[in-house]
Amino acid sequence: MVVTLTTDFGTRDGYVGEVKGVVLVGAPEVTLVDITHEVPPGDIRAGSWVLARIWSRFPARTVHLVVVDPGVGSTRKAVAVEVEERWFVGPDNGLLTRILEGSVPRAEPPRTPLRAHELDPEREVFGPLSDTFHGRDLFAPSAAWLAAGGEPSHLGPEMDPGELLRHEAPGPRRTGRGAAGEVVHVDRFGNLISNIPAGWLPERPRVRVGAIEVTRLGRSFAEVDPGSPVLIRGSAGTLEVCVRDGRADERLSAARGTVVDVAGEAPPGESPGTGG
Amino acid sequence: MVVTLTTDFGTRDGYVGEVKGVVLVGAPEVTLVDITHEVPPGDIRAGSWVLARIWSRFPARTVHLVVVDPGVGSTRKAVAVEVEERWFVGPDNGLLTRILEGSVPRAEPPRTPLRAHELDPEREVFGPLSDTFHGRDLFAPSAAWLAAGGEPSHLGPEMDPGELLRHEAPGPRRTGRGAAGEVVHVDRFGNLISNIPAGWLPERPRVRVGAIEVTRLGRSFAEVDPGSPVLIRGSAGTLEVCVRDGRADERLSAARGTVVDVAGEAPPGESPGTGG
Amino acid sequence: MVVTLTTDFGTRDGYVGEVKGVVLVGAPEVTLVDITHEVPPGDIRAGSWVLARIWSRFPARTVHLVVVDPGVGSTRKAVAVEVEERWFVGPDNGLLTRILEGSVPRAEPPRTPLRAHELDPEREVFGPLSDTFHGRDLFAPSAAWLAAGGEPSHLGPEMDPGELLRHEAPGPRRTGRGAAGEVVHVDRFGNLISNIPAGWLPERPRVRVGAIEVTRLGRSFAEVDPGSPVLIRGSAGTLEVCVRDGRADERLSAARGTVVDVAGEAPPGESPGTGG
Repeated sequence: MVVTLTTDFGTRDGYVGEVKGVVLVGAPEVTLVDITHEVPPGDIRAGSWVLARIWSRFPARTVHLVVVDPGVGSTRKAVAVEVEERWFVGPDNGLLTRILEGSVPRAEPPRTPLRAHELDPEREVFGPLSDTFHGRDLFAPSAAWLAAGGEPSHLGPEMDPGELLRHEAPGPRRTGRGAAGEVVHVDRFGNLISNIPAGWLPERPRVRVGAIEVTRLGRSFAEVDPGSPVLIRGSAGTLEVCVRDGRADERLSAARGTVVDVAGEAPPGESPGTGG
Repeated sequence: MVVTLTTDFGTRDGYVGEVKGVVLVGAPEVTLVDITHEVPPGDIRAGSWVLARIWSRFPARTVHLVVVDPGVGSTRKAVAVEVEERWFVGPDNGLLTRILEGSVPRAEPPRTPLRAHELDPEREVFGPLSDTFHGRDLFAPSAAWLAAGGEPSHLGPEMDPGELLRHEAPGPRRTGRGAAGEVVHVDRFGNLISNIPAGWLPERPRVRVGAIEVTRLGRSFAEVDPGSPVLIRGSAGTLEVCVRDGRADERLSAARGTVVDVAGEAPPGESPGTGG
Repeated sequence: MVVTLTTDFGTRDGYVGEVKGVVLVGAPEVTLVDITHEVPPGDIRAGSWVLARIWSRFPARTVHLVVVDPGVGSTRKAVAVEVEERWFVGPDNGLLTRILEGSVPRAEPPRTPLRAHELDPEREVFGPLSDTFHGRDLFAPSAAWLAAGGEPSHLGPEMDPGELLRHEAPGPRRTGRGAAGEVVHVDRFGNLISNIPAGWLPERPRVRVGAIEVTRLGRSFAEVDPGSPVLIRGSAGTLEVCVRDGRADERLSAARGTVVDVAGEAPPGESPGTGG
């Protein structure tokens, strides 16, 4: 059984270690997989993006432990949610948005959870609850419980999955001249990942990002000169704007939320929403 | 069986990889858990803090491999120490101080090792010893040996655990008007973690850290305005000073070692030293 | 079975998570080991160095997944190579150079691969291939296949290992007055790791690195004053230049490629090339 960890804890202070120890006490046979602990502190959108990329790559019965929790200690709920044979355990603050809405990567359809439970710290599965570290005291024991095959009803009462909180995630849209969307993630290389499905790209696209228009569509960075921007059908299934041997975010003065506008002739036989 | 790794090796150069390879050759069935490799180079106090947070969260029979070793190649001893069913393997330079003294987190009692062995590089368990990488050549094979259920006497002679080196770790103390202690760790978020037990806090505390007095006691960051400092009963069982959406270390010009002074009325029924 | 991962993906964006998920789907029982994901983007020499350090420390049948792939999408081959009971899976761009040539660490002899296969994305082992993420779509399924004991011939046709690409890796050489070589790696501590075998060092060496001559040969950093440079017989078997409590790269204005010149009397009984 696999338990993955996606957090904003960083790797300096031992917080992740405490969480792993608690999981291993509850489920000694588990395979622990670090996804990232470098989500920017409290950045729910960034956590939501990473999760949407990785969750369906893992085997059925994987438990995804996700702790980006700026509202810890407030009234936000703590939840365990089952979606297509994987469990998600974490705060109910929008971390599942992209999975539930399916907007990015666009090729992914929206998913409907099979069931959701609100974690109740009073249940006997849990020990004492700290004010600020529910990752260790609430989410880790829940993940271990589920990974070990335990009944979710022991963790807390079932809730309506339709009530799970979602953050605003504006989808891409067709326009008269092509498509419009936005940069939804900037990766460590400075690549600009948009929410516009690669399948929506016309044959000779003209893409405006910030103040610059990029027209070169390549299959890889290697096709253009160093320092030149290039349009890529990205590995998340959407349009990416990259700069060979450089950072597209700096070169194009773009960031998450920057508008991406695509003009050109639509490819024949493509209808809106089919993605790629 | 679990082997955890806490080092100052960083993750860039493959040093951790060499250590893991050696452990897996000696104990192929082991579950390896990275605690951190970002201890500041040679910072024994920081390593000691992380270790004190995590060690008891792991299952019995876990081996904690700890290599923060500025004195490698000097006369410092190399040791394997058993404390409450966990093994600690590393240099004898004070890394176990907080566990043996129990000062932080205060809720933890001091621990007495069951036994300690001085690692002897001449034993047949070990191969050639490099001058500067005992993590790979001495500590990793020892951890594998113990994780695989080997007898510690094969690693070297037993020694008196009372002779294990400790660094200075001044405890908190009661004062006429409250309590006094110091910042013992600054985490990646800039939170100031003190050594003053949360149970020592009076009902209406006035806490001076550096030049600033903080009086707001919260259950979470979410209770105060962004940029405001707040006192928290921290997840290590001690007083923490935090700033919502900001760094307390910068806002209060504080660092490890900064004095923390608590004034106010003691809570009824609390006696010195009970912690919390 | 062990699968190690060495990449330049960083740990922020979930790319490593996708790779791990794919490996676990194909080989659920595998032990995943992160070597590093901090190879500087596209830096094949740095990846090659890390790999040369760690590969032989792992158990027989380990699969080393190595993805530093600036040429993804170009005509570079994708390969699986067997060397002394370990598999290497990654792009054919020189990442195996140091292992095949044996030049660093010098104590390691050159290795001849037992066999090599060119990965063919059309084989049924593989799913759809993205333009830019062969780590996920090609190399991860190949690593899982081999770790699960699959026949390499299912991944693609056998190729002549002699055709594997190598980057230039100039070896050290004996000179009339001692030896000459270069800095081949600068680690996170700023230590300068050369390609000159420790066994070539004369008894009273004078080593010029950049503009500075260092003559102090120590067994550890602890032997010199803080801030002083010292020559070390490094844990990779070669000469290292270090500064106690400081960074040798900054103190000596040196970097990868900086010439290292050793003068002095050769130790008796040492012949060129025996290393140490």
